[in-house]
Amino acid sequence: MSVVITDPPRVPADIVGLFEPFGVATVHEAQGRTGLLASYMRPIYPGAKTQGTAVTVSIPPADNWMIHVAAEQCRPGDVLIVSPTSPSDAGYFGELLACSVVAHGAIGLVIEAGVRDVAALTQMRFPVWSRAVSAQGTVKATLGSVNVPVVCAGQLVHPGDLVIADDDGVVIVPRLKAADVLKASQAREQKENATRARLKAGELGLDIYGMREDLARKGLVYRPASGA
Amino acid sequence: MSVVITDPPRVPADIVGLFEPFGVATVHEAQGRTGLLASYMRPIYPGAKTQGTAVTVSIPPADNWMIHVAAEQCRPGDVLIVSPTSPSDAGYFGELLACSVVAHGAIGLVIEAGVRDVAALTQMRFPVWSRAVSAQGTVKATLGSVNVPVVCAGQLVHPGDLVIADDDGVVIVPRLKAADVLKASQAREQKENATRARLKAGELGLDIYGMREDLARKGLVYRPASGA
Amino acid sequence: MSVVITDPPRVPADIVGLFEPFGVATVHEAQGRTGLLASYMRPIYPGAKTQGTAVTVSIPPADNWMIHVAAEQCRPGDVLIVSPTSPSDAGYFGELLACSVVAHGAIGLVIEAGVRDVAALTQMRFPVWSRAVSAQGTVKATLGSVNVPVVCAGQLVHPGDLVIADDDGVVIVPRLKAADVLKASQAREQKENATRARLKAGELGLDIYGMREDLARKGLVYRPASGA
Amino acid sequence: MSVVITDPPRVPADIVGLFEPFGVATVHEAQGRTGLLASYMRPIYPGAKTQGTAVTVSIPPADNWMIHVAAEQCRPGDVLIVSPTSPSDAGYFGELLACSVVAHGAIGLVIEAGVRDVAALTQMRFPVWSRAVSAQGTVKATLGSVNVPVVCAGQLVHPGDLVIADDDGVVIVPRLKAADVLKASQAREQKENATRARLKAGELGLDIYGMREDLARKGLVYRPASGA
Amino acid sequence: MSVVITDPPRVPADIVGLFEPFGVATVHEAQGRTGLLASYMRPIYPGAKTQGTAVTVSIPPADNWMIHVAAEQCRPGDVLIVSPTSPSDAGYFGELLACSVVAHGAIGLVIEAGVRDVAALTQMRFPVWSRAVSAQGTVKATLGSVNVPVVCAGQLVHPGDLVIADDDGVVIVPRLKAADVLKASQAREQKENATRARLKAGELGLDIYGMREDLARKGLVYRPASGA
Amino acid sequence: MSVVITDPPRVPADIVGLFEPFGVATVHEAQGRTGLLASYMRPIYPGAKTQGTAVTVSIPPADNWMIHVAAEQCRPGDVLIVSPTSPSDAGYFGELLACSVVAHGAIGLVIEAGVRDVAALTQMRFPVWSRAVSAQGTVKATLGSVNVPVVCAGQLVHPGDLVIADDDGVVIVPRLKAADVLKASQAREQKENATRARLKAGELGLDIYGMREDLARKGLVYRPASGA
Repeated sequence: MSVVITDPPRVPADIVGLFEPFGVATVHEAQGRTGLLASYMRPIYPGAKTQGTAVTVSIPPADNWMIHVAAEQCRPGDVLIVSPTSPSDAGYFGELLACSVVAHGAIGLVIEAGVRDVAALTQMRFPVWSRAVSAQGTVKATLGSVNVPVVCAGQLVHPGDLVIADDDGVVIVPRLKAADVLKASQAREQKENATRARLKAGELGLDIYGMREDLARKGLVYRPASGA
Repeated sequence: MSVVITDPPRVPADIVGLFEPFGVATVHEAQGRTGLLASYMRPIYPGAKTQGTAVTVSIPPADNWMIHVAAEQCRPGDVLIVSPTSPSDAGYFGELLACSVVAHGAIGLVIEAGVRDVAALTQMRFPVWSRAVSAQGTVKATLGSVNVPVVCAGQLVHPGDLVIADDDGVVIVPRLKAADVLKASQAREQKENATRARLKAGELGLDIYGMREDLARKGLVYRPASGA
Repeated sequence: MSVVITDPPRVPADIVGLFEPFGVATVHEAQGRTGLLASYMRPIYPGAKTQGTAVTVSIPPADNWMIHVAAEQCRPGDVLIVSPTSPSDAGYFGELLACSVVAHGAIGLVIEAGVRDVAALTQMRFPVWSRAVSAQGTVKATLGSVNVPVVCAGQLVHPGDLVIADDDGVVIVPRLKAADVLKASQAREQKENATRARLKAGELGLDIYGMREDLARKGLVYRPASGA
Repeated sequence: MSVVITDPPRVPADIVGLFEPFGVATVHEAQGRTGLLASYMRPIYPGAKTQGTAVTVSIPPADNWMIHVAAEQCRPGDVLIVSPTSPSDAGYFGELLACSVVAHGAIGLVIEAGVRDVAALTQMRFPVWSRAVSAQGTVKATLGSVNVPVVCAGQLVHPGDLVIADDDGVVIVPRLKAADVLKASQAREQKENATRARLKAGELGLDIYGMREDLARKGLVYRPASGA
Repeated sequence: MSVVITDPPRVPADIVGLFEPFGVATVHEAQGRTGLLASYMRPIYPGAKTQGTAVTVSIPPADNWMIHVAAEQCRPGDVLIVSPTSPSDAGYFGELLACSVVAHGAIGLVIEAGVRDVAALTQMRFPVWSRAVSAQGTVKATLGSVNVPVVCAGQLVHPGDLVIADDDGVVIVPRLKAADVLKASQAREQKENATRARLKAGELGLDIYGMREDLARKGLVYRPASGA
Repeated sequence: MSVVITDPPRVPADIVGLFEPFGVATVHEAQGRTGLLASYMRPIYPGAKTQGTAVTVSIPPADNWMIHVAAEQCRPGDVLIVSPTSPSDAGYFGELLACSVVAHGAIGLVIEAGVRDVAALTQMRFPVWSRAVSAQGTVKATLGSVNVPVVCAGQLVHPGDLVIADDDGVVIVPRLKAADVLKASQAREQKENATRARLKAGELGLDIYGMREDLARKGLVYRPASGA
């Protein structure tokens, strides 16, 4: 059945905002290395970065009808998560749709398929993470669903989940875990700041993390190069 | 048989020039969604853009001899379309060849293979769309043909056809259709300008394109989120 | 057996420095078209460029323990060459490790796997050539080796070999051949400078390289286009 | 947290058994075209076929420790569903593990990674659907989880779900929908039997499904070939 | 425009029949190494073999409506050539459609997409060459064309062309060249028979083809292994 | 420089013969998980199996001249290892070449490229492991080398090394390690036989390998399923 779930609960905007300092790698670590989309999801321009709440779209291959339906469901701070039911590199989304979803508050797109008008999208600074870039248009013939759970690039995404995306890719934080993951991210960042200073000063991870004994016990051998 | 067809008819330069405002996506739509090369053909730098007339080169794998032959056939405004007879990611084309073909009027390259010296080509602003970047050189041992019909990245290209390429990829307009496609592109652009204004103002595609009835008839259901 | 070879002989720094003007394509040609890594090894930012001496790391899939070990083995001017024993796109290396290896003199990384924190690495201008970008972390559980011969992206690399990398990819020059390849690169560059001038002036490769006779002998036919 | 859920509820064996006549394509259609794994999941021998209940395994890349843990959780009629947390083609599973899980009732394996000993597995007629075949061994160093929901090859799988697999791939039927999908599969099969007879007799889908009017309305044109 | 061309001229059946002894490699060589489809087109069972006349189908991604239209256009000895307008691995064709097209004389299918029911198709010995196997169904929503020129897996195919396919892949012989290619195939086969006998007797290609002088002139050096 | 090394030392035939009982996975484990070729190297027919001594061929892309040269270097029990200098899927090798190398004692082929005439090769039971199957012919224009060290599918291979290949892929045993690896393979096989019996009897790897304590110490938790 094709369904549009209206106004699902979302991670609150104030919590979303507090994720601003953290990159995908930090958040992914902070939530126990879960929620990362496959590495073939790449930003359309370097420096793309977003954090927002998911509006999910399950969509037929090469058919973008449901993105028009999803536009109406966008609220300020939303990021569209679009996943076709079979692989497609068609260009489901371009500048016109971007104008439309931006008018309704959307701040980014993650699509396991293709996107087009990337020059215009780049100029608008509307960030997109996609599997492909393609000018190939789509049809409007078959229904899908909006704001149902979807699997996108190997990860389960529920509507209202937190989406963090940058040059490293895209990570999903389940809605009810966002507050905890925020704290864990802050803690991780603090710890990394301390470590960074020591590493820059030349201390080695071998010593900071106390690895030498473990390495020796597992049998690592050091040997000078023989001859030249 | 290996053959070089000299001075094939080309889309007239004044028509080519009028395509300047239009991107690949617009032209692809305007000619009924035909002629688009596969999405693995990517520009070597962001913002690459060209429109020109095709000089086609059918070429053996990892052998660039025929590009030297093709250089002589280039006229101002030409774009080289190079297609190997079996897959290859070797670097068939680099800065020296670019200097040569530019001296004969070429303004871009589309190659279903590899290219090298991309830093220098970027500095020259010589746009290339390719399947790979590779420093791997090629040999000059086996003949091919110039200005015969070729299939490049899944599309049939005839010499003299119009080549439009930008960040979205590459589209081919058959020579005798160029004037019609120009008109269709202009019409499409005008229509999109009107739509863009409405979308930016917050009107929805659902209403502008009158989709609501169709969606309902096909059975789309709206349902509020249950609980939080 | 897991082993760390300490202080292998390296290409001397003064020879390395003299390679600065030469790109990957030039060096690859100059050494007889050997030593080029596979074309899926791409820089994380445009304009990335390095030349240095190899510290090699053979590493288990999705386990970056040995990079911490390798950090201690880095000397000024070294480039880390990291190759997993089975394919992995995990993010073995990020900003913290970069801070560490930079503190020990490393100037770049070549990894047949994934890398993360690319925004930070780009800001640091720490160049990386990798197969993937991924925030996926790795474990520290299994030994590997440092400064043993490794195959990375299809090429055999010995510790101390010269690594040249730029937008075109990565090429390895065996340590004992570096001086000879330097001379050959200089010679090639000089010759190309002369050729470049002639090509820019409109002379054709067909004439400069004397190809016309050979082409004719092999049977290349020129034929005017028939009709329009 | 790493967890093993013991004895999750499963689709009852008598319902599973009634799926025997139905292939993956029929079941996939019968449940509304959901639940199909990606097409890169291929059987290790032609004619492989299974239907059973899922024991799910979330597992680190190139580490098969948790499959040993999962072996103890297998009950007669179970099919192991194994999904690594980042891509890997290592050979996580071979003949010895097959002997072990068979002794505990398992009847098949679906793994989004590699498998080895395929000659022996074929001789045992132990069916496996995998992304790769590779002799590359794995380590036993890092925990994962058993019988938690996993995403495998693009589909969400819960423990106890029904797994149907054959030469066409793998489809998952959620546990609580199995009875309904069974009925729908039976209905579909009956209907197809009737259609098959008519098609074999030469009737056309155009007429059986009443497509001609729709095609004409959309503008399909029939035109005799011009000349020969 | 969507069009069905009815009854295009085809390579005559008696000529088609005479190709029976020749494999894809022989025919590909005999027509000057042209017409070969990309190597990702694989048969669904070992030993698949066909030669027939092309009924071409240009089809939207994940939409198989036009194959129903094409079924009516099939005549005894035809092979369907199906090419989607953007990449798709969906299963456009299964056992029911096979029953239908067989009833109208079709003897095989070449599809740059997915196919399903491969166990049943194998049992029917209905040979298919495809890019993927997938149970994923398709829709019937958008028009395409039948018996127009299409590019399939990198090759231009016209309706009525000769299609030869076996374990090595698929090659297309243009309709008007079929008689000439037949003669060239017969000649090649005869010549190969003679060569085969000499090679089996231990004569070397180096001598049969007179390569030694050429190799020496190009600088090939023979050197005994040094030490053991 | 292009060179043919004649009669390199090989692993002795009696040692090669003793490897007959062992598969690729066993040998790969027995030599410390080294020497395995990439998993994209697949046999052309199920059940393909060989063990022999390597004749290595470094070869230009899409040019098989050096395989003719290599044929003369084959001795009874040799396996050809062919590696192009840049990626190619062309069909370098077919039935005629197989007849020739068989006449000189070769018993198999490993090629990181394409092969053709697979139906005939299968009938001859001449085993081939390749990256692709393709009828695309190659040229004879450019030199390469025979019996020099090559990197094939990610592994370094020296002439005279032992090549073991079966349905699981291909593994290389360095010549001077063959006797040791033989002993280790025999030891491993014996140990596995004992383990196999216990696993078939229902004992768990968890107990046989004493894993339970380690799993608990790392924090693995068992929990009954909640509800149904």
